[in-house]
Amino acid sequence: MKTKENTARLLISCADRPGIVATVSQFLAAQGANILDSRQHSTDPEAGRFFMRMVFYLDDLINKREALDKAFQSEVAERFAMDYRFSRADRRKRMAILVSKYDHCLLELLWKWQREELEVDIPLVISNHDDLRKMVESYGLAYYYLPLTKDTKPAQETEIDRLLQEHNIDFAVLARYMQILSKNLAEKYSSRIINIHHSFLPAFIGANPYKKAYERGVKLIGATAHYVTDDLDEGPIIEQDVERVSHRDQVDDLVRIGRDIERKVLAKAVQAHVEDRVIIFENKTVVL
Amino acid sequence: MKTKENTARLLISCADRPGIVATVSQFLAAQGANILDSRQHSTDPEAGRFFMRMVFYLDDLINKREALDKAFQSEVAERFAMDYRFSRADRRKRMAILVSKYDHCLLELLWKWQREELEVDIPLVISNHDDLRKMVESYGLAYYYLPLTKDTKPAQETEIDRLLQEHNIDFAVLARYMQILSKNLAEKYSSRIINIHHSFLPAFIGANPYKKAYERGVKLIGATAHYVTDDLDEGPIIEQDVERVSHRDQVDDLVRIGRDIERKVLAKAVQAHVEDRVIIFENKTVVL
Amino acid sequence: MKTKENTARLLISCADRPGIVATVSQFLAAQGANILDSRQHSTDPEAGRFFMRMVFYLDDLINKREALDKAFQSEVAERFAMDYRFSRADRRKRMAILVSKYDHCLLELLWKWQREELEVDIPLVISNHDDLRKMVESYGLAYYYLPLTKDTKPAQETEIDRLLQEHNIDFAVLARYMQILSKNLAEKYSSRIINIHHSFLPAFIGANPYKKAYERGVKLIGATAHYVTDDLDEGPIIEQDVERVSHRDQVDDLVRIGRDIERKVLAKAVQAHVEDRVIIFENKTVVL
Amino acid sequence: MKTKENTARLLISCADRPGIVATVSQFLAAQGANILDSRQHSTDPEAGRFFMRMVFYLDDLINKREALDKAFQSEVAERFAMDYRFSRADRRKRMAILVSKYDHCLLELLWKWQREELEVDIPLVISNHDDLRKMVESYGLAYYYLPLTKDTKPAQETEIDRLLQEHNIDFAVLARYMQILSKNLAEKYSSRIINIHHSFLPAFIGANPYKKAYERGVKLIGATAHYVTDDLDEGPIIEQDVERVSHRDQVDDLVRIGRDIERKVLAKAVQAHVEDRVIIFENKTVVL
Repeated sequence: MKTKENTARLLISCADRPGIVATVSQFLAAQGANILDSRQHSTDPEAGRFFMRMVFYLDDLINKREALDKAFQSEVAERFAMDYRFSRADRRKRMAILVSKYDHCLLELLWKWQREELEVDIPLVISNHDDLRKMVESYGLAYYYLPLTKDTKPAQETEIDRLLQEHNIDFAVLARYMQILSKNLAEKYSSRIINIHHSFLPAFIGANPYKKAYERGVKLIGATAHYVTDDLDEGPIIEQDVERVSHRDQVDDLVRIGRDIERKVLAKAVQAHVEDRVIIFENKTVVL
Repeated sequence: MKTKENTARLLISCADRPGIVATVSQFLAAQGANILDSRQHSTDPEAGRFFMRMVFYLDDLINKREALDKAFQSEVAERFAMDYRFSRADRRKRMAILVSKYDHCLLELLWKWQREELEVDIPLVISNHDDLRKMVESYGLAYYYLPLTKDTKPAQETEIDRLLQEHNIDFAVLARYMQILSKNLAEKYSSRIINIHHSFLPAFIGANPYKKAYERGVKLIGATAHYVTDDLDEGPIIEQDVERVSHRDQVDDLVRIGRDIERKVLAKAVQAHVEDRVIIFENKTVVL
Repeated sequence: MKTKENTARLLISCADRPGIVATVSQFLAAQGANILDSRQHSTDPEAGRFFMRMVFYLDDLINKREALDKAFQSEVAERFAMDYRFSRADRRKRMAILVSKYDHCLLELLWKWQREELEVDIPLVISNHDDLRKMVESYGLAYYYLPLTKDTKPAQETEIDRLLQEHNIDFAVLARYMQILSKNLAEKYSSRIINIHHSFLPAFIGANPYKKAYERGVKLIGATAHYVTDDLDEGPIIEQDVERVSHRDQVDDLVRIGRDIERKVLAKAVQAHVEDRVIIFENKTVVL
Repeated sequence: MKTKENTARLLISCADRPGIVATVSQFLAAQGANILDSRQHSTDPEAGRFFMRMVFYLDDLINKREALDKAFQSEVAERFAMDYRFSRADRRKRMAILVSKYDHCLLELLWKWQREELEVDIPLVISNHDDLRKMVESYGLAYYYLPLTKDTKPAQETEIDRLLQEHNIDFAVLARYMQILSKNLAEKYSSRIINIHHSFLPAFIGANPYKKAYERGVKLIGATAHYVTDDLDEGPIIEQDVERVSHRDQVDDLVRIGRDIERKVLAKAVQAHVEDRVIIFENKTVVL
């Protein structure tokens, strides 16, 4: 039966060379799997990097998973020195959300989650302010208020880390969380924290991008969703978009227009991550 | 050597069922081919249609082509009841252009052809007016002026058909050719004639779409590139795009703004056709 | 003091002829008013229609309003046979929302209302289903459930009309209200009901536009906000937008992608209406 | 008669205060002028800057121009300390184009000029290479080849300056002219030289923006048309646009996609300049 339980995704990244697609697809066919969707990309067939995402189903997958993984490892992955992972389509990823006072990105995520567009579990929302508690709790979600001062930042981050572990979080989203994560935390959750920056990066890195955009007199403003690295606003970009503005728009207007871009861009990026579409390589993303 | 001569594209369309990707990729691997790029799409893995485009290279392809095609036919294609075709990447398609008096779509194509963005040969340009002769001939291209009246239309179309055959044309582009092709010609060159319609189809089918758009008061206007069928403006859509307009724009402004959309949309559609990216199925296109 | 209380908007529509701007601006200057913003449009200076929106402030406007209106009527409007209206910037329009079961457009409006982006009062939400009651009431708003069958439609519309009157509604928004209003109601609230249609009109008029879009194989889908007339989906268009789709998108995907376009387009149209930016003329809108 | 000869544009920039629109429109009405189009903008009515563009016609304008200008100066402009200029709609601006080896921006301009979309005279094209001579001369235009080495740069710029003066140039367009103008020349032709930069400024300032965009892994690339100042890539932005790219696009693809954005953006910016729609203030543009 082609249920979600029997469907899995396979993500592969390795040095490109002849025979990869044939080997992988033949391996899956030999197991009795049927490929539902497959996308691949190669930076250069001669000496480049090969990326692939395959979605397949396999009867009784739930009982065959471990054996499948083991067989793939020994028969295919080692031969091509692959980075790879299998991911069950029926297993909902566990997503934490970190916010401060702005609610628009948070609401967009909750909204899409509520209507089952975004198929995740949200064990908790963490904030350095208490403002959004009522709203979050109205969705039946747990809200953790972790205030911070300059002195308590390390302790607060320790507590964030503890909560993420306690709730078995797969990844976290900074939905306009107005704090810079320490190098420690950024590295520990490498490739597992998505941030929304309110500019079309690499333009207007850092604080107050809308004010800078106003002062520069740009004719388009944008937003960028990226994985967090310890290099501020320099992580791998997942998604970007822009809207047209004009001389009529003051900073306040840019902030208002920007909110709609931010939530759209963040939601798209999170969706891609949840569906295992994103592979990171050399500080860039391949979105398959 | 990975030269263009040794590179080919394989396009497949068939009923979906398990094992297609494995079989095809294994067949190619067994021949010694290396897959450079592969995209596939399935309308529904249960009882849907499967589409695939593979680009591969194979040493000494030029001498192996016939055997390869024959082997693929008997070993793979028959088994899956495939529609398929191999296409050599080094073989430039032969494209005819039909125009009337407007030059913008024509110029866009010639321009991209001249700078080698559009890798085709253009054996001839045909027009029912003589206006654009000088311009076309300045590019070193042959210009055929085939005037027509109501009475001469069948004869003119016979002459068009004869010229297309004489010049071994692979496909033709109606770059704002202001005549409706007869059912006969449309069917004879089915899937091989691309038209640009100056509206966002299916809105404003038929004549004077910009005037109709003005009268309806739309806030966006568009253009549509599609394959010609004998059903006017109803053929499979390859590409569409739009631009924002406002109450300030009169019909003349829509025509001017529209010109830029038309040439952009037509150029993209022709490019996709030339690179063997388009598969037609049930009056729709899959652009891989 | 340049408070909101002292700020007003003047909307004018009349036959174009020399001297309108001079007369109006001089009239306002003579009253001591200062023009903050002014936009005008003329379809044709020779024999066309002239449209203007002026925002001005005037000390102690609240006490001068009646006299100002009267003086404008006799000194300016009659001379140019103007349709005009003054509108106080501090007076929040009273907006009713009609919904069925889909919540996305409703939520977008409530959200922007809650964050004071949309400066209206919402005295009531009316629905032919009871599904969204809890959500609406959680915003502290009144919810009226008016179920209907074929037989009760006239009675239900009478009740809608009564509620709109009782609550002194300025305008109503059909936020995916899945019923066609009767000619009677449409005419009674002419220019005061905004609908969101889930296609890029005039393409895909009527029911199931996403299904029709899928079947036609379009490469962009859209949404259209328009004033309701008794001619289905033919009213004056206020705002439209589109998003790119591909052969990969099934009907369900179009519905999902479309939701985001619908709420964006409807919110923009409502915003323009609320700010008195929209003038209707000959079944089209001028958005100043 | 409403001929082009009798039509003029008035551009105004001054400190905002009550009565400007009334005074200007009354002045024009008193002269017998009819306002065809008017747009204004104020950065802040309290202590901001006011900008206005009015298009009007006046019988026998050609003989009244000097008197009109004089009267406006003494009756209106001095009172409000206005920067202003009258510009005749029938007078074609004289535009020079500077290019190097890339022809796409040049061709777009020549093409729009040839079809009378761009109503300018082009007395000359200047280049530091001889490559595009034939193409330019085929349009019947003069081509000046001014080669340069590091040592001859000052002499070459002196010659450019001399040619611009000799041909009474109103403004110049750098259509991918791959040389940085000296501070001297940039200042001398301040607000009169338009450049196209092949990135979405302020991202990727300086050389090789497409390579930088590729390396950063952005999901959109863009182009920016701006006035040249002596601060590289920092001048007032007139127009910007972007296109979507993906991990599939190599640097070459970005260059190709970028070409189409560059010519579109540059053409729009030049059009706005030619129609006297652009006012520069504090290193930003107001495009009315």
